[in-house]
Amino acid sequence: MENTPNSLELPPSNSREKVKELVMGLQDEICSGLEALDGQGHFLEETWERPEGGGGRSRVMQEGQIFEQGGVNFSEVHGDELPPSIVNQRPEAKGHPWFATGTSMVLHPRNPYLPTVHLNYRYFEAGPVWWFGGGADLTPFYPYLEDARHFHKVHKAACDSISPELHKVFKSWCDEYFFLKHRGETRGIGGIFYDYQDGSGNLYKGQNPNGEAAKIAQATGPIRKTWNQLFALAEACGKAFLPAYTPIIKNRKDQEYGERERNFQLYRRGRYVEFNLVWDRGTIFGLQTNGRTESILMSLPPLARWQYGYKAPKDSREALLTDLFTKPQNWLEDLSLEEKCKLHNAVN
Amino acid sequence: MENTPNSLELPPSNSREKVKELVMGLQDEICSGLEALDGQGHFLEETWERPEGGGGRSRVMQEGQIFEQGGVNFSEVHGDELPPSIVNQRPEAKGHPWFATGTSMVLHPRNPYLPTVHLNYRYFEAGPVWWFGGGADLTPFYPYLEDARHFHKVHKAACDSISPELHKVFKSWCDEYFFLKHRGETRGIGGIFYDYQDGSGNLYKGQNPNGEAAKIAQATGPIRKTWNQLFALAEACGKAFLPAYTPIIKNRKDQEYGERERNFQLYRRGRYVEFNLVWDRGTIFGLQTNGRTESILMSLPPLARWQYGYKAPKDSREALLTDLFTKPQNWLEDLSLEEKCKLHNAVN
Repeated sequence: MENTPNSLELPPSNSREKVKELVMGLQDEICSGLEALDGQGHFLEETWERPEGGGGRSRVMQEGQIFEQGGVNFSEVHGDELPPSIVNQRPEAKGHPWFATGTSMVLHPRNPYLPTVHLNYRYFEAGPVWWFGGGADLTPFYPYLEDARHFHKVHKAACDSISPELHKVFKSWCDEYFFLKHRGETRGIGGIFYDYQDGSGNLYKGQNPNGEAAKIAQATGPIRKTWNQLFALAEACGKAFLPAYTPIIKNRKDQEYGERERNFQLYRRGRYVEFNLVWDRGTIFGLQTNGRTESILMSLPPLARWQYGYKAPKDSREALLTDLFTKPQNWLEDLSLEEKCKLHNAVN
Repeated sequence: MENTPNSLELPPSNSREKVKELVMGLQDEICSGLEALDGQGHFLEETWERPEGGGGRSRVMQEGQIFEQGGVNFSEVHGDELPPSIVNQRPEAKGHPWFATGTSMVLHPRNPYLPTVHLNYRYFEAGPVWWFGGGADLTPFYPYLEDARHFHKVHKAACDSISPELHKVFKSWCDEYFFLKHRGETRGIGGIFYDYQDGSGNLYKGQNPNGEAAKIAQATGPIRKTWNQLFALAEACGKAFLPAYTPIIKNRKDQEYGERERNFQLYRRGRYVEFNLVWDRGTIFGLQTNGRTESILMSLPPLARWQYGYKAPKDSREALLTDLFTKPQNWLEDLSLEEKCKLHNAVN
């Protein structure tokens, strides 16, 4: 019975309203928290309507004290039929009207010692099926082990508050999803990512049946969750964002940097662009299906650089990123990471 | 019989050698011409081998006097079977070993009055089929009608030197191919583009059977060409590049510019990145199939900018680009374009 629509719990009658309220609340809470953190920049809001149904509110901060550019989106959209890219993953949704709501965010700090960060929590209903998806991941330029551990620790606690099996799968899924195959690099130090969570059993419903995340999920076995538990998961993870990110910013925001660090940051931001435009299914799907381009591309950095054949000097702080922090790591349990960081003279 | 492999002429026995010599010669000629034009920058060469078969030579200029960054690639690669993205277009190639050689180039001048330019000429053989493809297109930031006309005039003459029906189809195909659907804009003022030319008849073998280029080709009727004629087409168009581009650069290279023009150029370069990573089949195919990433991404600009919600002020020189020069135009025959440019106070 597992994974067939018949085995799905019926969502509560006010499910759409509930999730919409949650993600709008997250958008509000996160924007307020970020404005307080920045101390200078403010989010400007634009509301928009989608001709095919629904709309949203996009909030952008530009030229803040800390944030060079950042956007926090909310949207609630619906339509007659989901596009093939989603129906392929959820064939039961085929031919049914659908509803989706979510919040997504990318922040690009100016100081190269501050990591770029992304968050997205979303909910779909389509005929007999519904599911939650989401996650958050961190992309440092000059990485610090303690920051990576902090970000993962807070998100693990949020997942654990619902169920202890979740984090391992979602952490690994994040490494798998935010991966630039053409560079052989993860986008950053990861975080959590999950999709197609309908409570019916298998925690991993990604694209790679032979990958690490699939193996962990298989070893874990089927884990049934209620709609309310998955709602609570989105809430707990969404609320984990500020405590996961803001201490990192507070700690590092006054670190001085020069042209070298800025140049490296702009170069690495090029990777962010490459990931979002070449590999991110959400971005590509949005652009190819008449989404609101300006809101979708709010994720792109204010400035990015490409340089043919760049290689970080051996053992440099820049090489620390590519040698260690753009490969999947067991940040919370691998104690050898300290030693490895020290080789680059870059441990705190 | 048209378009079936059986109707294809057999290529000459030294076909691969001949095209390889042509495209290597084009790479040499263009690099020398550009170095002479720049007066300061030099191309640095890297040769590389492809583990699956073949290799190439990548040449890059960085921080020239005129060219902020530019690359001219040559490659000659072969393999056991073409990927689905190409086989879908040429089903007769399925299951056959293949050979491909070509040259490609993108130049990003520093001065915002100088247009970015792209060129690519290539040749495939796969079992019973072979074909030529290629083209060149111009992407201005602060556009001039006379420059657009010059670029098109030179490429039209090159096409006409082979056959008078070609240019109309290839010009229209270029507008269709270099189009950012998510922005509703062409990448620039176009030029020429053609693919899958095997001499068997239909000049247009693109993806849009209801588009303008398909209609023009259909109205033209079947045009058979010999291998030698298509070789001569690649040669004529490839050799048209320097006369098409260098006079534009010579005319404008000393025009002074400030922060406003530079900012707009960087913003528009963002569109170049978006096209190449989201829509360009060659780039996406290369990145998703273990191509040489650094050579493929030589096309990306040294610096690019994104800004949420930017709109060019009405009637500004910046709006001239989006109102007129990023829409398909009949540059050579539409005499109303002068008048339209004047509305922006931007005609020469």
